[in-house]
Amino acid sequence: MTDVDEPAPARRGRPGYDREQMLSGAVRVFNEQGYDATSVAALTERLGLSKAALYHHFDSKEQVLDASLERALGPLEAVLVTPEATTGTAISRLAAVLRGAVHVLVAELPHVTLLLRVRGNSEVERRALDRRRSFDQRIAGLVRDAQREGSVRSDIEASVAARLLFGTVNSIVEWYRPGGPETADRLADDVVAVALDGLRTPDAEA
Amino acid sequence: MTDVDEPAPARRGRPGYDREQMLSGAVRVFNEQGYDATSVAALTERLGLSKAALYHHFDSKEQVLDASLERALGPLEAVLVTPEATTGTAISRLAAVLRGAVHVLVAELPHVTLLLRVRGNSEVERRALDRRRSFDQRIAGLVRDAQREGSVRSDIEASVAARLLFGTVNSIVEWYRPGGPETADRLADDVVAVALDGLRTPDAEA
Repeated sequence: MTDVDEPAPARRGRPGYDREQMLSGAVRVFNEQGYDATSVAALTERLGLSKAALYHHFDSKEQVLDASLERALGPLEAVLVTPEATTGTAISRLAAVLRGAVHVLVAELPHVTLLLRVRGNSEVERRALDRRRSFDQRIAGLVRDAQREGSVRSDIEASVAARLLFGTVNSIVEWYRPGGPETADRLADDVVAVALDGLRTPDAEA
Repeated sequence: MTDVDEPAPARRGRPGYDREQMLSGAVRVFNEQGYDATSVAALTERLGLSKAALYHHFDSKEQVLDASLERALGPLEAVLVTPEATTGTAISRLAAVLRGAVHVLVAELPHVTLLLRVRGNSEVERRALDRRRSFDQRIAGLVRDAQREGSVRSDIEASVAARLLFGTVNSIVEWYRPGGPETADRLADDVVAVALDGLRTPDAEA
């Protein structure tokens, strides 16, 4: 990519942002300041680049949002069609989806964070919410299948169970920071353990 | 006070908001538009009242925020000192705190929603985050006590378990709407069941 014009003083002479760097920079700013509250002018100023540089890669702020949401939704949807999520018992498929979702959250943390804050104020946001809704329905369907096969308790409504499960998974974005002591694999194990088997030691009295 | 609902031209001549109505109206606007993004002018316009009316009850927008966060934090902290949360086995105390927290979330939904979105941009917000942090540490301490008494599995780090537990609880604000089929009691039962015993039917194979 060519140089960015109007660079911040310290960045003078450095090469400009490519599309990928611009996307991650923008998403960082959106997550800090809120997407709606961030104008294109404020965004480019924070990134130390010109509007022209942004518009070289993206048609609009909304297209940046769309690209970011795709980074979250695409891999989450892909989890649903892996062999582990489509073959075997319903409870093993459910465990595979939980595990896969944790990995996507960790790998695409800023994009998933943005996705979870989307409120439906534009067409791009509404499309993302529709895709989230379909995803949630697939999870509820998996819980229902597992209830039918007898592997998941039937005293909790499937849609409530699905919401609580993904509440647990999604809450990870609030505190997980890459590079900490908790690896994605370990975290996925913990989530599956808590979600399916609970915290209680087997046979312990309440 | 008389009841006031949606502000609109139709309200002309009706009595003004009292402090409580102003607080809940303001919190609804903050949750819809974001606290930082809502100026006093925009807030009072949305509520259909004058700045003077707002300033009659509150010194500043920040004081409104403070009052709202207290509505969430006060009851949550009160849960920690109930007899159920301070006597008995650690796992029964943990269950009591989870159950109590769900009830607070349901009873104070808009205030807890606002609390969970606070990012620490002001002194009021930082104080609230400090209180949340203390609360979370108390939960982690309870999990640790339960691990020591042998009632909670020790293969998950207490602080991670506490975060996942309250991730599950806090996620309720994203979808729970009062008046739906799920009562607070039922929801509290479901959360405790999933958190402590998991979704899996006892003895089911993964």
